[in-house]
Amino acid sequence: MLHSLSGRAESTMQARLLTELRDHGPLSRTDLGDRLGVSRTTIGVEVARLADMGLAREAGPAQSRGGRRSTMVDLADDVRFAGIAIGATGISVGITDGRLEVLETEQLPCDIRRGPEEVLGTALERVRRLLDKLGIERPMGVGCGVPGPVDFWRGVSVAPPLMPGWDGYPVRDTVARELGCPAVLDNDVNVMAMGEQHAGVARQARDLLFVKIGTGIGCGIVVDGQLYRGANGCAGDIGHIQVTPDGVQCACGNHGCLEALAGGAALARNATDAALDGRSAVLAELLDEHGTLGAEALGVAVSRGDPAASVLLRECGQRVGQVIAGLVSFFNPGMIVIGGRVSLLGHALLAEIRGTVYQRSLPLATGSLPIVLSELPHCGGVIGAARLVSAEVFAPSSASA
Amino acid sequence: MLHSLSGRAESTMQARLLTELRDHGPLSRTDLGDRLGVSRTTIGVEVARLADMGLAREAGPAQSRGGRRSTMVDLADDVRFAGIAIGATGISVGITDGRLEVLETEQLPCDIRRGPEEVLGTALERVRRLLDKLGIERPMGVGCGVPGPVDFWRGVSVAPPLMPGWDGYPVRDTVARELGCPAVLDNDVNVMAMGEQHAGVARQARDLLFVKIGTGIGCGIVVDGQLYRGANGCAGDIGHIQVTPDGVQCACGNHGCLEALAGGAALARNATDAALDGRSAVLAELLDEHGTLGAEALGVAVSRGDPAASVLLRECGQRVGQVIAGLVSFFNPGMIVIGGRVSLLGHALLAEIRGTVYQRSLPLATGSLPIVLSELPHCGGVIGAARLVSAEVFAPSSASA
Repeated sequence: MLHSLSGRAESTMQARLLTELRDHGPLSRTDLGDRLGVSRTTIGVEVARLADMGLAREAGPAQSRGGRRSTMVDLADDVRFAGIAIGATGISVGITDGRLEVLETEQLPCDIRRGPEEVLGTALERVRRLLDKLGIERPMGVGCGVPGPVDFWRGVSVAPPLMPGWDGYPVRDTVARELGCPAVLDNDVNVMAMGEQHAGVARQARDLLFVKIGTGIGCGIVVDGQLYRGANGCAGDIGHIQVTPDGVQCACGNHGCLEALAGGAALARNATDAALDGRSAVLAELLDEHGTLGAEALGVAVSRGDPAASVLLRECGQRVGQVIAGLVSFFNPGMIVIGGRVSLLGHALLAEIRGTVYQRSLPLATGSLPIVLSELPHCGGVIGAARLVSAEVFAPSSASA
Repeated sequence: MLHSLSGRAESTMQARLLTELRDHGPLSRTDLGDRLGVSRTTIGVEVARLADMGLAREAGPAQSRGGRRSTMVDLADDVRFAGIAIGATGISVGITDGRLEVLETEQLPCDIRRGPEEVLGTALERVRRLLDKLGIERPMGVGCGVPGPVDFWRGVSVAPPLMPGWDGYPVRDTVARELGCPAVLDNDVNVMAMGEQHAGVARQARDLLFVKIGTGIGCGIVVDGQLYRGANGCAGDIGHIQVTPDGVQCACGNHGCLEALAGGAALARNATDAALDGRSAVLAELLDEHGTLGAEALGVAVSRGDPAASVLLRECGQRVGQVIAGLVSFFNPGMIVIGGRVSLLGHALLAEIRGTVYQRSLPLATGSLPIVLSELPHCGGVIGAARLVSAEVFAPSSASA
């Protein structure tokens, strides 16, 4: 009994020490002792144990702070993580070092509707290619994000409306088996939120919301630096919050959901309507040229000074802003980061979201609230996925829970 | 340096040990060791130290689990906390033991608009009377809840719209000085949420929302058993979420806020309108009888079968339900507790809230989501206030932070 308890205490110490090295390393033994509230001797014993496990190493003498000179400690050089971020229309994969800096990354288009075997097969093949290029036999862990709801604890996708074949598919166990290492699975928005908190614009924020506007609309919730998943793991599902009671019908069956009004598919449909009914000559021209219009076409048309496209973009921003205003009143976040494909429409959209939130929420909550665009539109998901699996690798006791 | 760090580690251990005794005591040394992941010897040393401080005591031999018989540990008999829960129209005060069981409590009407000196004076006088009755010279701590926003860290009310004279008033330091013990101040909704989580219907829930519908409407947010306060301490301010863009103007200046449509004042106004314009004979009779109508009149009229009152009550439930549906999609709570004066209107209101939430939110989040009435309409605030100050008393290092 006492043995297992002491094992648990060790694991917690181990996880905290490795996390400090990941986020702030290299650090001297003295610094580590101060940060963890234990003696330099305890740190020495623990580092020796982690060195045997291939996770940490000593890295030469520290600069003197007076008294006996301390020793620097760092993560082992061969700590490497893989990240796989799957979206509705594309995949990002990457390899990071122990501090989650991206060593190699690749983006490729991919239609999620092709099913888990084909999509995961493509992603895994690209990961293997990057590992080969870096001369890595096996990563220490792989994190994976997929669009739509996920049962985090079981590691499977759950009834994703846009993803035939993915319902109940054992994504986590598949990537773990294929790469021969521990794996975690989360939804794409949570993974992006973690990336932004680790390496993006939200590095200093402890409580933040990451709002993704892509084909779907979702929200990653970070409380005190950690993901908040909710009682059933489906927190952040803001795409189905009602914006107007008499709006268009959503795929979920209800009317006036945010996603049905301001998601990528809605923007594409609205742009196409404006092209066909004569409201926008620019959109009509783009439709002629390409055969179909996506949300991106709105950005092109706005940049060419098209008034109808500006109206559509403003409406999108107002709808998103209206929902975010409610979340600000409820959650009082320290920062809001806007990401996802539609966010690439940029500052015109952001200005409209900001205007609506600042007008609708109370001054105490918005007085010092930054609402900003993602700084990591391409590799945030990879970094976040790597961060989630690093926590699992650093704390083996919770991995087996 | 090492001394202070070891002091911090001791304080954490002390807080965890005392919290275990508060929530699950009395416990054997062996049980305590298992729960805290330390040896029975460490527990013995720690308990001796806490006994010297007058916080814990040994309580005889434990039942044998085989092997050496363990010793029971309990909180000291004279650990007593005071709780003061101030609402817009009434005060609850009470004294609890170390396990936060209410020993004496009293409710009295009181108008918050009479200002802090008079209201706090009344509350403190009643607390002193209860202490006298129980033969207690001084409580170990006093928790206090007030309606409207609070700066938790500074212990003052902030610009409360309904409370002239309270803005910036040093409530926490006043009650601490008057009762000669540590004090904490929070808003009434947070205090009620804590009470419900500790001793009410939400005892088993780790992530929950407590929605108070009274003169104002607010929400207490509990994440992993602890209050979530947000970046500026104003999380849960859901009364100003917009329900309809063209609704009546709210005190905050915006239109269509939940509080302006479904708060106690709105219900009273709607009931009065229905009495005056001939829609409701029952409400007209009640108005004749009492001179004015409050939200309670709706409950009376509904119980007498008045159709106009039923419509008003249903509308209120739908508006509240509409906002809660959005919060469920966002926050995926494990439970929602409805409290506050308007909740005394009971099951007709609850049924309407439930219907709206279950219809509007996705099945994954509502499948196992209880939406229930508070079990502690009268002393939840007192228990919650006592719990908040107990955490402060048990962890002196955080109190001085």
